[in-house]
Parts: sequence; structure tokens; C-alpha cells
Amino acid sequence: MKLLRVGTAGSERPALLDGDGDRATLRDLSGLVPDIDAALLADGAALDRIRAAAAAGELPELDATGLRVGPPLARVGKVVCIGLNYHGHAAETGAEPPAEPVVFLKAADTVVGPDDVVLVPRGSRKTDWEVELAVVIGRTARYIADDEDPLAYVAGYAVSHDVSEREFQIERGGTWDKGKNCETFNPLGPWLVTADEVPDPQALGLRLWVNGELKQDGGTADQIFPVAEVVRYLSRFMTLYPGDVVNTGTPAGVAMGQPEPKPYLRAGDVVELEIDGLGRQRQELKDA
Amino acid sequence: MKLLRVGTAGSERPALLDGDGDRATLRDLSGLVPDIDAALLADGAALDRIRAAAAAGELPELDATGLRVGPPLARVGKVVCIGLNYHGHAAETGAEPPAEPVVFLKAADTVVGPDDVVLVPRGSRKTDWEVELAVVIGRTARYIADDEDPLAYVAGYAVSHDVSEREFQIERGGTWDKGKNCETFNPLGPWLVTADEVPDPQALGLRLWVNGELKQDGGTADQIFPVAEVVRYLSRFMTLYPGDVVNTGTPAGVAMGQPEPKPYLRAGDVVELEIDGLGRQRQELKDA
Repeated sequence: MKLLRVGTAGSERPALLDGDGDRATLRDLSGLVPDIDAALLADGAALDRIRAAAAAGELPELDATGLRVGPPLARVGKVVCIGLNYHGHAAETGAEPPAEPVVFLKAADTVVGPDDVVLVPRGSRKTDWEVELAVVIGRTARYIADDEDPLAYVAGYAVSHDVSEREFQIERGGTWDKGKNCETFNPLGPWLVTADEVPDPQALGLRLWVNGELKQDGGTADQIFPVAEVVRYLSRFMTLYPGDVVNTGTPAGVAMGQPEPKPYLRAGDVVELEIDGLGRQRQELKDA
Repeated sequence: MKLLRVGTAGSERPALLDGDGDRATLRDLSGLVPDIDAALLADGAALDRIRAAAAAGELPELDATGLRVGPPLARVGKVVCIGLNYHGHAAETGAEPPAEPVVFLKAADTVVGPDDVVLVPRGSRKTDWEVELAVVIGRTARYIADDEDPLAYVAGYAVSHDVSEREFQIERGGTWDKGKNCETFNPLGPWLVTADEVPDPQALGLRLWVNGELKQDGGTADQIFPVAEVVRYLSRFMTLYPGDVVNTGTPAGVAMGQPEPKPYLRAGDVVELEIDGLGRQRQELKDA
């Protein structure tokens, strides 16, 4: 299923995208579930009710005209990010492929809708883009055993934009978090695609354009640590809860990896990104 | 005021500690406010109602016998931490005093009550202690101007234990976050002391004991970046919201700073910590 949340920021209602492409219909879920959130993801019976109601044609249609799409998950828990997780991206930054996953955090309050404005922070000279596959956790994961399937803890997947200010991240002392947590720095969505519709998370193409020019064109097959390994690894260092999001890294093609003058983002730029089967985002950059 | 939350984990009720020391009485706030949370901190009128009801003697007494104390804030937003923020601690780790604040994040789900069990992660050999002054944000802070008082954005203060696994933090690749986000790694409380009762956050003594032996004995006067400067600085890199917590760093005396064999924490150890006027914590360590 493709779950989403539509409406003004803070007042989104839960919805389902029924069908594919031009023939897709937006269905209202607000009569069936209060929201798309951790409680829903952890409740298999509720997800089954949505599936059954959709199959029976019982869900009312929603007029999509002019509707804003919000983040597909309410009350995001924590956002855990994996750095340098694509061979191509590690190479373009001049880094050796890491021996184990590089972990950092974004605050959940950086999450915005897929087409919301992204703000260039005041004083920023190096605001950069990163298309990423986001993994949404559906079951509490704590020390996942070697013989367990980590993907059983995954509720679904989404497109994530891990916006990054490189000077704040790398040149201002301390950890990467300083350049990863500016306001609006994590557009998420449009949909939370349930895991049953993504049989192989290592077979997804990811693309990102700036002002119409293709900048990133990668595939999750290039991930150094695949999704299952990332989830298992993280569960040894922190407990993952339903509603947590894991941004699994970005492929090659960010501004930082390009020749000088590096084409960092400025107000007025438009970024578009997509992942196979997970939908497409479009953000206009504005000054904070 | 000393605001706190008492009861079993997840079902705490709001309370007020009325008076000082042996003559203090626990008062029930649940008839007056739903919880101690971001909404309350941002609502000056509600805080005034509590103050007035306490002064009028209208708040019912709560029997404290056997009551667990929870974290003094429900639904913590993000937890932003400042590293190496005391001259003494920077020196003991062999680091130069940082030129600007070192920033990292803890997930809000690491927050537990002040006397709850702290879990030594599986595979941990270097679980360490850090007593810290926590600043609780009461108003949205975004690019605080040079002529504004950053302390006007602070709702109150609390004792915070920034438990840290040094091998995970420093020796496993990536950023510090990997050693800062293990389950139970942020005891907070017992109280949220409102800012009006802390006229000078740079004049507080902090102490920490392990198994009764004094390990940290510092004062916020030794902070490299004082609270006001930290809050102003952070507001340039991220938006601070009511209910966010800032852990402002730890004084000298952590296990990492001591001669070999360094006395890292193990199951069975007891850590106690306190800050002048903000109360005292006591945690027993157990294996995860």
C-alpha cells in the first residue's frame, strides 16, 4: 500500500493512493484510522483493515486538487542516518569505504512534506542535496539476532532528502549533526510504501535533479551496507522503535563531490528527486 | 517551581515539589494541567495558575511513599548536546578547548527517570558517566539576535546524565552519536526547576559519585561556552522548540580521563549525581 498524509501542515489527514500512475485514486482513510503513525505501523490488524476496505471499494475518494502532501508519517520518532553508504559517494568525497556503518542523527522536527519549501540557512554557503532511501521501522528492534531477518522490523520505505550544509557539517568543529539539523532539512515522502510492495530494497534506482539537470543517478545495489545489515547493526547501538526512520545514505553526485566552483543550492533553485516505486519530491529553495 | 512527574513509566502524573528539603511536600497537579510538557512550558498563563494554586494552598498533597519519579518532561523534543564544554574535561580528554561549541544529538527515547536503571549495552567495555546541566527550552528559538537575551527562551533547568559508551563513540567510525544513544542513556530529573529559581546558570556546582566515591566535582563557572551563548549559537544551526533539551556538557572526572585501567561502569555499580538546587539522581547499572 501507498500510505500518505494530505492537508495543511499539522492538520494532515491519512490517505491511501489506490492504483498506479495516471489511474491512481486518492482515498480518505480518516474514517478508518486516526493517522499514519507508529501506533498504526505496529498494528498489523489495522493495516489489514485498510487493505480489506480498499479491496472492497469501501474507501471514499478524496479530491486531490490543490491538496498539499505532508510527510507520510506523523510524530516521527528519531531519524537515524547512515553516512558514506554508497561506494560512489564515498569515492567522490575522497573517503575510504567505511569498515562499519557511519551513524549520525537528524531531529524529527526537520521532517517536512515532499514538496514543501526547503530553507537555505542564514550564513549558509554550502547547502547540498542527498537523495536517500528511508526505512520506516514497524516493530521494536533491539539486538536483532544473527539468525533473524532484520527486514521483518521494517514497516515500509519512502523517499527522503537528507539536506546537508557542508560547512556546518565538516568545517565548524564537532560532529556532522551541526550541518544536518537545520529547519526543513528532511523532506520525506510522498508515500510510505509498505514493505510487502518492496520485495528487494537493494534493487531501487534513485535520481535527483537540480533545476532540471540530473545530478544523482544511482541504485541501492551500490550500498556498502545493505538495508538489512544497517537495521541489524543499528539495533546493537540503539533501540529502534515503530515510527523511527533510517536514512540509508546517498549515491554519488552531490555538490560537494563536484569540481570548483561547487554548485551548492541557493534560494530559487528547484530540487526534484525520486526512487523507483516510491514516488517523487519537488522542493523550491528559499532563504531562511 | 520544582515540577516533576511521578508514577510508573508511561503513566506519570504531573506534580509540584512544594517547599525545600525535609519540609518539602509533593502536590498533585493532575487536576490543573494534563502533563508537564512542551505545551505547558510555552503557556505562561498555565504556569501562573500552578503558582497561584500553590500559593493559595489549593493543591492536594500526594503521598510520595514508594512513588517512582519519571523524567520531569513528557514527550521530550530533541536532545541537543554540547561536547567538551568544560575546560577541565577538555583537558582530561587531551583535547584543545574547542573554538566553537561541539554539537551532537541524543534521541529523546534515551530519556528515563532520574532513578531508573541504566543498561550497560551488550558488548560494552567503556560505559562512562557525565553529569550535566540540562536546559529545557520554553519558547521557539530561531536565529536569536545579538541584542536578545537567549535565557528568555529557557523554561527551566534539570540534572541530566549523559551516559556515554566511549568505544562506540570514538573507536567505531562515524560520529559520537553511536555511543550516545543506547537505551536508558539519558536519565533526566528529578525536577524541572523553572528559570526564575535559577538566577545564574553559571553558578551551579555539579557532583557525581560512583559507588559512593566522588568522581566529578565541578561548577558551571568552568563552562567554555556559557548557557546563554550555547542557546544563541544553536539557534543559528537548528530551530529550538519548547520541550527540547540541551545537555550543556560535563566537568572533569569521567572514567575516560582517568589512568589505566579506567574505571568504566559495570552491572551492579551505582551512580549518584546532583546539581545545586536541581536535585539528585541515583541509578543502578544492569546488563542490557
